[in-house]
Parts: sequence; C-alpha cells; structure tokens
Amino acid sequence: MGHDDVPATPRAGWPYRRGEVRVKADQARDRGSLRRTNLGSVLRLLRGGPRSRAQIATETGLPKPTVTSLVGELVGLGLLREGPAQREGAVGRPGTLVQLDGRDICGIGVEISTSYVHVLALNLGGEPVFEHRTEVAVADQDAEDALDLTARAIRACGAALERDGVRPVGITLAVPGVIEAPAGVVDYAPGIGWRDVAVVEGLRSRLGPDTPPIAVENDAKLCALTEYLLVEDPDVHDMVCLTGERGIAAGIISAGRLLRGATNFAGEVGHMPLDPERRPCVCGRAGCWEAMVGLDAIMELAADPDDEVRDQKRPLEDRFRTLHLRAERGDERTSRALARVADDLGLGIALLTDVLNPRVVVLGGYFTHIGDLMLERVREVVRGRVIAPDAGGCQVVLSTLGFTAAARGGAFLALDSVYEDPADVA
Amino acid sequence: MGHDDVPATPRAGWPYRRGEVRVKADQARDRGSLRRTNLGSVLRLLRGGPRSRAQIATETGLPKPTVTSLVGELVGLGLLREGPAQREGAVGRPGTLVQLDGRDICGIGVEISTSYVHVLALNLGGEPVFEHRTEVAVADQDAEDALDLTARAIRACGAALERDGVRPVGITLAVPGVIEAPAGVVDYAPGIGWRDVAVVEGLRSRLGPDTPPIAVENDAKLCALTEYLLVEDPDVHDMVCLTGERGIAAGIISAGRLLRGATNFAGEVGHMPLDPERRPCVCGRAGCWEAMVGLDAIMELAADPDDEVRDQKRPLEDRFRTLHLRAERGDERTSRALARVADDLGLGIALLTDVLNPRVVVLGGYFTHIGDLMLERVREVVRGRVIAPDAGGCQVVLSTLGFTAAARGGAFLALDSVYEDPADVA
Repeated sequence: MGHDDVPATPRAGWPYRRGEVRVKADQARDRGSLRRTNLGSVLRLLRGGPRSRAQIATETGLPKPTVTSLVGELVGLGLLREGPAQREGAVGRPGTLVQLDGRDICGIGVEISTSYVHVLALNLGGEPVFEHRTEVAVADQDAEDALDLTARAIRACGAALERDGVRPVGITLAVPGVIEAPAGVVDYAPGIGWRDVAVVEGLRSRLGPDTPPIAVENDAKLCALTEYLLVEDPDVHDMVCLTGERGIAAGIISAGRLLRGATNFAGEVGHMPLDPERRPCVCGRAGCWEAMVGLDAIMELAADPDDEVRDQKRPLEDRFRTLHLRAERGDERTSRALARVADDLGLGIALLTDVLNPRVVVLGGYFTHIGDLMLERVREVVRGRVIAPDAGGCQVVLSTLGFTAAARGGAFLALDSVYEDPADVA
Repeated sequence: MGHDDVPATPRAGWPYRRGEVRVKADQARDRGSLRRTNLGSVLRLLRGGPRSRAQIATETGLPKPTVTSLVGELVGLGLLREGPAQREGAVGRPGTLVQLDGRDICGIGVEISTSYVHVLALNLGGEPVFEHRTEVAVADQDAEDALDLTARAIRACGAALERDGVRPVGITLAVPGVIEAPAGVVDYAPGIGWRDVAVVEGLRSRLGPDTPPIAVENDAKLCALTEYLLVEDPDVHDMVCLTGERGIAAGIISAGRLLRGATNFAGEVGHMPLDPERRPCVCGRAGCWEAMVGLDAIMELAADPDDEVRDQKRPLEDRFRTLHLRAERGDERTSRALARVADDLGLGIALLTDVLNPRVVVLGGYFTHIGDLMLERVREVVRGRVIAPDAGGCQVVLSTLGFTAAARGGAFLALDSVYEDPADVA
C-alpha cells in the first residue's frame, strides 16, 4: 500500500536515505560526478559512527573494492581517519574501522537573535573550534549597523581559525524570521525589526571576495536540524522544536525531513491566536501565542521594568539564573509567572501535537534555563488537551543546547557542502 | 544545499518520484520482482496521461525494448490500451500513445461519516462504476449495527460489480477519527461514538473469505490524497484539506507527501482551542475549533432545533440548499451565521497557514455547499491574520468533490495495489 508512506530515515545523521547513492548515480552524467556522489554517500554514512569498509559496502550497496578506493581518497582529503579496531563479537573477519576526521575543516554558524549575535565554528566531527557571543539588542539598531557588527564578529572568527590552521567551508546565518533562502534575503523578522534585508549580499560586500559561501536560514529550522541530528532515540523522526526567545517559532521535522512549506515559512507558530483575552502583540495583531509565552511575556509577569532580570545588557543566562533562584526560594510572583507561562505553553504545544503528531517536542532558548521548573505542568496540560489518548505518545523535553542550537545548525548546514561533494575541499 | 530539501513530486498522480524504478530494481532479489516493479512504474507514469513508448523510456530511464515488452504485458492484463495517435508537433517520429485502461478492475472506497455511509467504486481510469449513499446518523447506532449496515452496503456493491463484470481489487474504509491503520482498528472517533473498534476484522468476518483486502484510513487523509491527485497546478505540493462535517479534521500534504505524524493522527485540527469564549465541545474540552465551525455549529447558529434544515433524516445537500436559498433571499439569521462561521474558519485557517505554509487550503464537506457565500470573508480574515505577507501566497478554495472526496480517496488507495504490482491482477 501507499506510495505516500515515507520510509523512516536511518540515523546516519542528516536526513538521508539509503538508495540515494544509486539514484544519484543514474542521474550522473559522467564517471567523475558519480565518484563524487559516492564519496559523499560514504562520508554521510560515517556521520552515524565508525564503520568497517565491509559494513560501508553492505550499507551503501557499493562493491567492496570501490569502497576501499573511496575511503582511501577521503583519508587523503583529511576527511576520514583510521579508527579503533573493530570490537570482538562482530560478524566476519575483524577489520579496522574508519571514522570522520575533518579536524582542519569547519562550518561557521552565526545566529543574529533579538538579544545577541553568536558565532560558532564546528569542525567536521562536530567539535567547536571557535565560539563568541556579543550581547546586543539588535532591534534597537539599524540593520546596517547590525550587519557591521556581525561582519566584525565573523572577521574575528576567521582570524582565529586562520591562526589555528582550520579552513571554513561556508557560513550560515540564523535569523528569527521569514527567509527567502535562495535570494539570501530576510523578508520579515519583527523581533529584530528587519524587513527586506539583503543579508547575504550585505555581509559579502563587507567581508570581501575571499569569504566562503554565505547562506541564510530561519533560526527555528536550524535548531530543529540540530536537535534531529543529535537525538539518540532511533525511532524519533517527527519533532517540533520551539525557540524560546522574544519570539516563538517552531522548527518542524516530519518523517525525517524538515517541513518548509510552500514558501519556506512553515513553523511561524508565534502568532497563533490562543489568548482568550486577546492582548496586543508586537506584530500588531491580538492574542498571539508569543505574547503569552515569549521572553518578554515571562519577564513582564515575573518582574517590574527596573528589576535586574529585565536588564537587557546582562547575559540572558544570568537573568534566568536569578529568576530560577527566586523560584527555588519560593518567591510568589516568580512562581505565579512560571505557572501561567507553563499553562499557556502547554496549550500551544497541545495544539501543535494535534496538528503534527510529533514524537518529541523540544523546548529551546530560554526554556532550557528555567523550563525544569515548568515542565511537569506543561506535560500535564498537554496530556489533558491533546485529542489522541496520552498525547499520542508525545514527549515534551528540554533542549540541552541552551542558546547555541541555531548557530550549531548553521555550522552543520555550512558543512553540508562537504558531504555533498567531498572532493571540493581539496 | 541540504539533504533536507524535498524534491518536488512530478504530477504523475500519486506521490511518486522518478528514480524509484532503479532504487527498487537494486533491491529486487530476482528478475521476476524487478519486472513487476517496472510494470508498476510504467503504470504509475501513465496516471499522468497518455504517452508514447519512447516518452515512457525517457521518463523511466528504462531501455526502449524493455518498455515495449512491459507495455505489451500491461495491455494483455487489461490495464493499458492503445490510445490516440500522438499529436503533431511532438518531437521525434510520431507514434501511438498508450493510456490507462483497467475498465474491468476497480477499487472500493467506503466512507463511514457522522451522517451517512457512502460506497464508491472507481475503475483504474478513475471513473465511477458504482455509487450508493445511505443517510444515517451513525453515532445513534451501536458500532456493531453500523458495521452490519456497512457490510450490507458493500455486499450490494459487490453484487452490482459482479453483474457488470468488474472485479474489485481492494476496499478502503474512511473513518473520521484516529486510526491504527496496520491493525485495522479505529482507536477513537468521537463524531460517530467509536472507541477501539476493530473495523477491518468486523467487516471481514461479516463479508467472508472471498472479500478483497480491506484497509481503514482517516477520512481527512483520504480527502487530501484525492485533492492532491486531482489538483491541476503542477506547483502545488503543499496543501491542507479540511473536512467540513460534524467534526473538522485536516488532511495535510507537505512537499508532495501525506503528513501522518509519529502515530498517524496528524491533522486532528478540530480541537484547537481557538474560541475566546471557551464554549464546551462534544469532546469534553472547551473552546474547540469544530464547536465554532463544524456542521452542528453552523446549523445551531442558523436555525432552531425544529427547523427543517436541522432534520438529520434529510440529505445534507438538501438541507444546505435550503440554507443557501435563505441567505440569497437576505435572511438575516442565516447571513449572520455564515459571517460568524466565516470569521472563525478564517482564524483557524490562518493559524494552520502559519504552521504549515500551504499553497492551497481546500474546504471540503459541507463547505462545498455553502462556502461560496463565505469564501470572500474567509480569505480576508486569512490575509489579515497570517504573519507572512499576503498569507505566503496561500489560496483558499472550495473542493469540487462535495461529500465524495473521502470515498474517492479510499477507492484510489484500494487501487494502489495494482500500481504496486500490476501482475497481481492476472
């Protein structure tokens, strides 16, 4: 039955399916491009962990001599290295495993959020090789000034990488808004006050012609890619990842694929009309979800304007550490605020669970710093409100990535070109 | 960039992608199953319209002699027939086109809805060969009685088909609820009062061992498959199809695939908490969308309980024809009811558009009979409420299928086995 059934994606990292090797092989016009495609397939497979050459042959369907030759080329390119000896008990003759290397190659992710600009470089193995965050209220600046600041941060990153002999292969910007990815334009990002900002062109002109390729993507989508890449349960292929910043957006993974929608703005959940009191939202509408559960909402519920937790110059982590301590000490206003936001968060999560039936809902951003005090109540609301029994098995969990998920996703996506065409790094 | 990008599905009918031929070929263990796979690929391709043998070879990537032989076998099986001569102006030597036949083979779709049981048989070309609808308030019956009635309707259909020499290859039931498709069980269908009903087993035991394979699927998902199969715009691969019955559910097509979610209940949009007045819903919760825009809601707003339009024994089409006439004549209560439902419908559609970014939202069920009077207002609300400019290009349209979409989708899905393995019909 059903050509509409989506086969589950194996956990070998990025949404990728077995069989693609041969499909692409059919499309390839010459032996050269076929070989490049197969190099990428072997590399992607090893994202899921070390393997012997024989395992690679079995899993890709490529002949063993071809695999041996491809692995040799990838080792030569510095993308793979010989790994630990295969553990005993494995089927067949014991062999050496090969694993990802790529210590000298990195992708750069740059998150431009409402409260900071975060630059993070990850090498091919996913290890951070550079990280820096600038606290800044981006909405209070001109977009041109914000691009100046971002370009400076990227230049500092580039200088540090050059010193360490690490080569960046690409840069992906994460922006909280509706993105026209192919054009490199931010259509609309109300949280940072941007409209029609040609961010890729703006940075390219500032950084000069030697800069690696620059791309831009919605922050929530990049968070979702990161969470999906890192989730350990092999049965999770349907996820909703909520950014918890001034705005609330969702990155949606459905059947192992990022849900983009017709024009790439799927996941704009911040303005769902859920507030029965229909209070005004920054977007000009009334009753929006992010006005109930966003960063500003919880801060306004929890503290007066002159309170230190509302000082935008302090790092967000510190502000939430203070709130957390207050709640632990039994401060009534803080506890009431957390309960209120938990109820409203649960309401929206239940709705998204009815619509999307995810296996996991991941709470990111500020929720990672205070959500432990809200989680039980959120889960209770979700269980009570979702139409399927026991919320269709949906788990609500906290991200372990704090405010780093979007930049991380950007770095991963920048590294994607290596997996697409490994020979290109030479 | 991005393995996460989903290539667009060509319009050759069911969600199906070029290249599958070869992937499956690789997986095939023997030449026999390879041939069957290729037969199916040729048949699926012709779902998109007549083609010459040379075109089939180009589009499937199979050698021309293989295509000639496969077409011969499919003609022999009664699934294809020689079609019109190729029109002038086509590239290459003019040739005869082949097209779908299968006039003697059909799939049966059976919708068990809140207000009727609808049996529809379609032949391989998509033409109806049997249709019958029984008006019945299914929720007022025992599930066993409803199964008795359904079995009688299917038996009548089978007798008619036998008389006409048409052979059914499968039956798919459409039910408004959460379905465990592999087990053939309806977990929860509040609109018809079912919980844990083993509907496939129940029908199989009533109909006997000679019955073709029976399956069950959610009605909204089947509607969405039908609408996607019939949509003419080749750029539409993201759709939301709303059932407009007593309950409201959505069938969601995302990037050319049916969105099922982790446990197959994605699209349960009827209980989104959108009502600021938080009025009670049949589900026991408060504020649900279907209590604002479902069949009962519009009827209660438009007429008193003893009004003829609320007589459940009358066909729904007639009841809506009466309402339509009243609105045309300027009846104030009817007009107010339609405006109110249009506003609330727009609110929910805007929300779903923010979350899913569809190219098209299709209004099915009762909306097809009265929605022309609501559409302008719905579109206005959607444009004003969606966060992306101009609703991200989303169009709200009425289905042209009335109450037939779910049964039609069931019949299409039943025919799917023929496309999977055409040799099986022999």
